[in-house]
Amino acid sequence: MIIVIKNGSEKKEVDRLVEKINSMGLVVNELCGFGATALSVIGDTSAIDVDLINSSAVVDKLYRIQDPYRIAGRNFHPQDTVIDVDGVKFGGDNFQIIAGPCSVESEEQIIRIAKAVKAAGATVLRGGAYKPRSSPYAFQGLKEEGISFLLSAKKEVGLPVITEIVSVNHLELFKDVDIIQVGARNMQNYELLRELGRSDKPVLLKRSMAATIEEWLMSAEYIMSEGNKNVILCERGIRTFEPSTRCTLDLSAVPLVKGKTHLPVFVDPSHAAGKTELVGPMALASVGAGADGIMVEVHDDPLCSLCDGAQALLPEDFDSVVEKIKAMLPVVGKSIQ
Amino acid sequence: MIIVIKNGSEKKEVDRLVEKINSMGLVVNELCGFGATALSVIGDTSAIDVDLINSSAVVDKLYRIQDPYRIAGRNFHPQDTVIDVDGVKFGGDNFQIIAGPCSVESEEQIIRIAKAVKAAGATVLRGGAYKPRSSPYAFQGLKEEGISFLLSAKKEVGLPVITEIVSVNHLELFKDVDIIQVGARNMQNYELLRELGRSDKPVLLKRSMAATIEEWLMSAEYIMSEGNKNVILCERGIRTFEPSTRCTLDLSAVPLVKGKTHLPVFVDPSHAAGKTELVGPMALASVGAGADGIMVEVHDDPLCSLCDGAQALLPEDFDSVVEKIKAMLPVVGKSIQ
Amino acid sequence: MIIVIKNGSEKKEVDRLVEKINSMGLVVNELCGFGATALSVIGDTSAIDVDLINSSAVVDKLYRIQDPYRIAGRNFHPQDTVIDVDGVKFGGDNFQIIAGPCSVESEEQIIRIAKAVKAAGATVLRGGAYKPRSSPYAFQGLKEEGISFLLSAKKEVGLPVITEIVSVNHLELFKDVDIIQVGARNMQNYELLRELGRSDKPVLLKRSMAATIEEWLMSAEYIMSEGNKNVILCERGIRTFEPSTRCTLDLSAVPLVKGKTHLPVFVDPSHAAGKTELVGPMALASVGAGADGIMVEVHDDPLCSLCDGAQALLPEDFDSVVEKIKAMLPVVGKSIQ
Amino acid sequence: MIIVIKNGSEKKEVDRLVEKINSMGLVVNELCGFGATALSVIGDTSAIDVDLINSSAVVDKLYRIQDPYRIAGRNFHPQDTVIDVDGVKFGGDNFQIIAGPCSVESEEQIIRIAKAVKAAGATVLRGGAYKPRSSPYAFQGLKEEGISFLLSAKKEVGLPVITEIVSVNHLELFKDVDIIQVGARNMQNYELLRELGRSDKPVLLKRSMAATIEEWLMSAEYIMSEGNKNVILCERGIRTFEPSTRCTLDLSAVPLVKGKTHLPVFVDPSHAAGKTELVGPMALASVGAGADGIMVEVHDDPLCSLCDGAQALLPEDFDSVVEKIKAMLPVVGKSIQ
Repeated sequence: MIIVIKNGSEKKEVDRLVEKINSMGLVVNELCGFGATALSVIGDTSAIDVDLINSSAVVDKLYRIQDPYRIAGRNFHPQDTVIDVDGVKFGGDNFQIIAGPCSVESEEQIIRIAKAVKAAGATVLRGGAYKPRSSPYAFQGLKEEGISFLLSAKKEVGLPVITEIVSVNHLELFKDVDIIQVGARNMQNYELLRELGRSDKPVLLKRSMAATIEEWLMSAEYIMSEGNKNVILCERGIRTFEPSTRCTLDLSAVPLVKGKTHLPVFVDPSHAAGKTELVGPMALASVGAGADGIMVEVHDDPLCSLCDGAQALLPEDFDSVVEKIKAMLPVVGKSIQ
Repeated sequence: MIIVIKNGSEKKEVDRLVEKINSMGLVVNELCGFGATALSVIGDTSAIDVDLINSSAVVDKLYRIQDPYRIAGRNFHPQDTVIDVDGVKFGGDNFQIIAGPCSVESEEQIIRIAKAVKAAGATVLRGGAYKPRSSPYAFQGLKEEGISFLLSAKKEVGLPVITEIVSVNHLELFKDVDIIQVGARNMQNYELLRELGRSDKPVLLKRSMAATIEEWLMSAEYIMSEGNKNVILCERGIRTFEPSTRCTLDLSAVPLVKGKTHLPVFVDPSHAAGKTELVGPMALASVGAGADGIMVEVHDDPLCSLCDGAQALLPEDFDSVVEKIKAMLPVVGKSIQ
Repeated sequence: MIIVIKNGSEKKEVDRLVEKINSMGLVVNELCGFGATALSVIGDTSAIDVDLINSSAVVDKLYRIQDPYRIAGRNFHPQDTVIDVDGVKFGGDNFQIIAGPCSVESEEQIIRIAKAVKAAGATVLRGGAYKPRSSPYAFQGLKEEGISFLLSAKKEVGLPVITEIVSVNHLELFKDVDIIQVGARNMQNYELLRELGRSDKPVLLKRSMAATIEEWLMSAEYIMSEGNKNVILCERGIRTFEPSTRCTLDLSAVPLVKGKTHLPVFVDPSHAAGKTELVGPMALASVGAGADGIMVEVHDDPLCSLCDGAQALLPEDFDSVVEKIKAMLPVVGKSIQ
Repeated sequence: MIIVIKNGSEKKEVDRLVEKINSMGLVVNELCGFGATALSVIGDTSAIDVDLINSSAVVDKLYRIQDPYRIAGRNFHPQDTVIDVDGVKFGGDNFQIIAGPCSVESEEQIIRIAKAVKAAGATVLRGGAYKPRSSPYAFQGLKEEGISFLLSAKKEVGLPVITEIVSVNHLELFKDVDIIQVGARNMQNYELLRELGRSDKPVLLKRSMAATIEEWLMSAEYIMSEGNKNVILCERGIRTFEPSTRCTLDLSAVPLVKGKTHLPVFVDPSHAAGKTELVGPMALASVGAGADGIMVEVHDDPLCSLCDGAQALLPEDFDSVVEKIKAMLPVVGKSIQ
């Protein structure tokens, strides 16, 4: 850690800061030659509260040398992590396509769409049972029943399934689900993350709309620090000033994060755009950016769907997107299965 | 709701959209004269999924005429809501100062600081027991013990107390706490909001760093729709591109939100800035903006505090800020008690 | 235009607003059934100051039905515009690769790099002569001399050339340049835009880091409203809260803008990322997103370059990126030449 | 400057980087004990292209120790700069109120409003003659004539005047104007900044909607590096995701910037909000935040104004705001004249 001291600070105040840092078992050295007082702090700084030091009146700037995550970092584990879910491999040279409706609406619906997406080339089935909605008056999902319908579809078509969890209290209901999704709004629900870390069930962790890449990786670290190494990251758009799209899909995060972590990185091109016609292009763009897979909404009657299946592709359009993805994959050195 | 149809859309596609909307019990009329096809949708649109319609390939733009919140809106309740917590009044012409350490660190510490902030003029005591931290390796609060120390301080100094909840499972522990704080990261933890809505305990709801004002009010609506009308809003900074501050305090949200809702609006000037020297000026700016109160961190040894008490004021500086606030309040037509 | 009136507004204030709008030659009708007063404004509203009306104390919300741009919009010109620069075609099914160093540093350097990028498959040569830099102490380009070196390279290798203009007073110097680039910082330098609109020289208009898509298209409209229809748009990243990249490349803007305008849309993947290793993936992502071309920095000794050639690719890496692009183009239905 | 080297980089690549930096006359030392290779770079790094080094494949992070601005910085000039414009003092303990219409519409109008704002307590008269507008079809100001009307008003009421410049070619027309305003869109029009730096005419430099505080100060440095020390900074709102306001007024920038620079810092509360009813509260908030003055739009018939006088206060409302400001100023240790 490097601390730049504010010009004109009183020596005794600086000394007091140094003393405090020393008392945490860290070594402080002055760096010379910068035209400003700078201190280097050596030792295990991961337990230090950076904001605390930064807020001191004598501190001008504070820089971290080491990243705050450990187990999630590529330094810790240089090779790509490959997660095997019932033979479907996430990460490495593999590319997976997670598809299905935003919400499970009925047993018949989820089985019908499951067959369609499998036929088109999807390798994992998605379907929401618990839906966090910004309005308390909107449809909140079929809950327990939704999970059981999804499991029926799994049995019927033989694809692994993924669905979102919204409360640590529901965990028991997810025991037969193959991958548990943590949505953007719960990315910093640390109690939930810790609990998920105590199993070895794969977790797909979406990036919060307001999270920096570092915070996203720290949330992965929460899960991994409890023992569960099966974390898949998923970019789904960040909040920006642009009003034409609901969020701005941050595709440069894909190669950047893949440099910093060994975990698989997915993209959800459906939610950011908020317009169906953008889903296909952004799916192809995700492949170009080097993603390990995409997660996309497909519905055979989008206008009838009960929640924001809004940006769902029709099965025939999904078909055509999958075909294009397959044509592109060799260029980026990846393949499906 | 107004729907603008994309130029060149096929009539049968538009008809299909209209049919769907009709099937929800809503009336659709064509608006003439705009040089583009526009539809007005009349009826109770609060149950409609706006994103769903917006994603349709024939829809160019979609505008809401009515706000999506009801009970939280000023249309529903034109007068300011005043919440009485043991004689301390929030909202209306009242101004309250919530102060205390970021974290409760020991019984002795919280009682000592409680006395200091009360002497300086604070009207509510704050102190964190459960601390959501972005690193799993950082101090997470004294938890249950922290709450009991805070309650000791309440008994000792006679101020109502506020502390943050991070899980619906902890609710029982908060029964003697006067105001429950929902932090920015949990603003969209809907399960927690609903549960808090089922009591009548006052809730201070912080704005998420990524939340629009509308989403923030919808989270208040979640609580209120279950019956609890005692919601206090608290602005604490939003994520922007400016790197010098942790967040950008959105003070224009204060008069804006006070126009849209009848609920009290507070400001937390400590967390956004991330630098102690900005807390005082931003506290005074909050008064100027018309806030109903502030929530500020005070610690008598900030460098020793266990968490991001980072931006805490020293008691003597807090004293001087309170004095200035008191001098300013008559200008904005408010007073403490 | 739709105007939603604030609940509880005085009738005479609303009447006054209506009168004003009528006095601009527009017809105002009340829309019924919304549970809020809403007015429709019919007529040519492009001359109306939307902000003016919006600021009125009786106005709650204001929505535009028609887009504010005309000539730049796809409604005005449904077919893709194809711009022919000396046989090199921009837009439609064509894909072009603009490459070269950030700055022209010497005649020898630009000719050497021009040969390298042409050999690799570039179809247009770039090279900065006037460099807007955020520090007054940094290298600002070779200016006039830089342009003459660039023109020598053009003669030598036979590629059309593009370079950035920073002042309306330099226009004369650009007469032999094939495409004039307007940088992000000058996207709203309206005097410059108007002047460029008075010739028929192709203009590549970069999106400002703070510009909404609508503002970007309005800047194109500035050029086009003066007569020049040869405008190429170029996305290069917007300002967001994410600190790991200089800007966030907004690739969803590509399909979105291509829906709204008939103009070619390019992407500059070099500047947003600020890290060389992200340039390749983001170039491929741009192809996937449906861009009509990319503009990329190539330097044979990046560390020695005089300006932020920072994120320049080495010729050999550029080679490999071009090869991958060529392999991907058939998937998106495009080809080079 | 501190450079953190990417884990696993090849030694010869790092050596090459070090060699390059050495060749710029700088000394590079390795910092030990961080668990990652870190280099300190000593010497005058202001000429170095930080982005260039940062883009190197072996660089993980790069941190500046010294701020990139010099003359604009408080290190260079610890005391507050006070700029005297015809007896009206900007900076230090002084507070000034700049008021007037968005646009000069006629000689009669500007004189009438000038009298009104002077009577209410304004100390400087504003009025736009050149108006940069996002639509080419909107009113662009009375230009030369507008300046002459503004100067008539100056003669009539005896207040110094300020108006915006949009082109370096208009400079001659501004010779009798007291303060030249550089608008947000021209904050990085470096050619204009340099030219303004060659006179000693006071310049009010608005912050661009996308500018970091550092970039804003670098633009001040552009002016000051040419010799003109009379720069007044003016915050006017930044682009964020919040759609309810045009921009988000960044008031924490006020105390922050005042710590970093000796220049006066003003706030324009009219443009950010975009709603008249927010102007008053944000003006008072600016005083609380420690601003050296405000710039506010006043119009006696806002609905009739020709441009985005949108958010203009009526003279009577301005009157009441000024009165409140005067009551608040003693609290922050400032006074008008």
